[in-house]
Amino acid sequence: MTGESAFLSLLRAGAADPAARGLMDDVAVLDVGGARLIVTSDTLVESVHFLPGDPPETIGWKLAAVNLSDLAAKGAKPVACLMNYALSGDAAWDAAFLSGLQEALDRYGMPLVGGDTVAMPAGAPRSFSLTAIGEATSEVIPARSGAQAGDILYVTGPVGDAGAGLTVLQAGRDAPAALIESYRRPRPRVREGGTLVSAVHAMMDISDGLLIDTARMAQASGLAAVIEHIPVSTELAGLAGGGIGALLAAATAGDDYELLFALPDGVDPLVAAIRVGRFEAGEGLTLFLDGASVPLPPALGYEHGT
Amino acid sequence: MTGESAFLSLLRAGAADPAARGLMDDVAVLDVGGARLIVTSDTLVESVHFLPGDPPETIGWKLAAVNLSDLAAKGAKPVACLMNYALSGDAAWDAAFLSGLQEALDRYGMPLVGGDTVAMPAGAPRSFSLTAIGEATSEVIPARSGAQAGDILYVTGPVGDAGAGLTVLQAGRDAPAALIESYRRPRPRVREGGTLVSAVHAMMDISDGLLIDTARMAQASGLAAVIEHIPVSTELAGLAGGGIGALLAAATAGDDYELLFALPDGVDPLVAAIRVGRFEAGEGLTLFLDGASVPLPPALGYEHGT
Repeated sequence: MTGESAFLSLLRAGAADPAARGLMDDVAVLDVGGARLIVTSDTLVESVHFLPGDPPETIGWKLAAVNLSDLAAKGAKPVACLMNYALSGDAAWDAAFLSGLQEALDRYGMPLVGGDTVAMPAGAPRSFSLTAIGEATSEVIPARSGAQAGDILYVTGPVGDAGAGLTVLQAGRDAPAALIESYRRPRPRVREGGTLVSAVHAMMDISDGLLIDTARMAQASGLAAVIEHIPVSTELAGLAGGGIGALLAAATAGDDYELLFALPDGVDPLVAAIRVGRFEAGEGLTLFLDGASVPLPPALGYEHGT
Repeated sequence: MTGESAFLSLLRAGAADPAARGLMDDVAVLDVGGARLIVTSDTLVESVHFLPGDPPETIGWKLAAVNLSDLAAKGAKPVACLMNYALSGDAAWDAAFLSGLQEALDRYGMPLVGGDTVAMPAGAPRSFSLTAIGEATSEVIPARSGAQAGDILYVTGPVGDAGAGLTVLQAGRDAPAALIESYRRPRPRVREGGTLVSAVHAMMDISDGLLIDTARMAQASGLAAVIEHIPVSTELAGLAGGGIGALLAAATAGDDYELLFALPDGVDPLVAAIRVGRFEAGEGLTLFLDGASVPLPPALGYEHGT
């Protein structure tokens, strides 16, 4: 067990409150005086979650977007957020960060209402946290655990663009702007989540990769999942081709921030969505592409703390 | 203007939502579906807000306590919190931190329900944020701006112990345990805040020093304040004596986390409290100790970003 997973075990032991959902979900659900709140918090660290050379306005955008995506997966309406900001020591950089953050907050209607600004010792990596507060819009809050045998699995858009954008940037190569934009300015599916919330059996955002997040949904639901289609964008297909290797890279890359959801067969998703597979009795994940069984890659996606 | 104050000006310009209170208050007030929430967030950074050699369990305690103190100043009932934790790379240190945090959360009834745990690049300073969510217990949320001419100014306990504890630790000297404990394990006045909330005209916690925080309350209320008494503990008096210099040090040290509040003359505070001064028409802060006017020290307390 790594330091992170050992620490998370300790955290979970302490977080006995039912609102914490055992810290196994991406959000907490709080009932306060007649309101049902969805709260979530994410931290971005330089060289861990973003590249030192990323434009600061895109890091600000991303800090808002990753938290909004967690709200979207619960169909929650954004209410407000608080930010913990470590000054970078470069006023222009900080101002650009803030403009990107504000742009995302304005677009998705989540005002910044508080937080804390600190000066870090010289040489410290940049590090920013945002805590988002949303309001539930449905009686039942979707979890990753509700899928049923026979359900169809959908995503709200193609996968792999962000991962390809990051790979290309790390290699210092040119790439279609759309891929870099997907990495730097993910679009949280807030509207789609609000529409889907009362129909889905299970829902989560794809932050670590289509395969691993599908495997997690299957495991949490006590079912087997079959992936029958890996949707990629025209831009990604143009860059990487449409071979099995490229598709598996797209399905394991992470940072997509599309919604992954399970709907009963025959139910219209009511939002733009792509069918990628189905759930059945059993356990585990199977890949079945173009009518043929495909072995799973050794890593299904990005794994935290393991 | 420093980088921090320039950044705060930009932040405030963006935070137009009334819930943000112009980011001039220590908390935000959110009305969500019939509930009135008090939310606040504080970050502690190694070598900035705590000493590298401080016992980890006391840093965990302090992270909870400083946020609980902000809720206390609004008379809010703690509901839940989220933590952003940067792993230290030392599992025993992390576990000890968590035990101190959990002890404070248990004592004040604020369950940990979520957050984010990240691994920082090697050599990064330790840094931790906590976002606390409370529920308002009164119709009017006390601010620092409500004091009225003729009001009496009180604190819930003596000042300067934490500052003296820090000074002694930094000098590597021995000190009464009570002073070190005040620095390392401040006691947020949650119960007192809940009792005071419906009676006070103005209330805040003393995080930066009695003098500067009184001056801020006076300025926000458009009044003059007169400090007539600087209460110090027996332990501090024993260490530093009771001379004017020692009293001024105690009143400018900060980190006290006592509540400072204004009550109409003749109204019983209903909690253990010490009268320290009064408000009158005019502006500015005056010191009047033992019947004599005392010049203000050059620095009234700890100032952020100026």
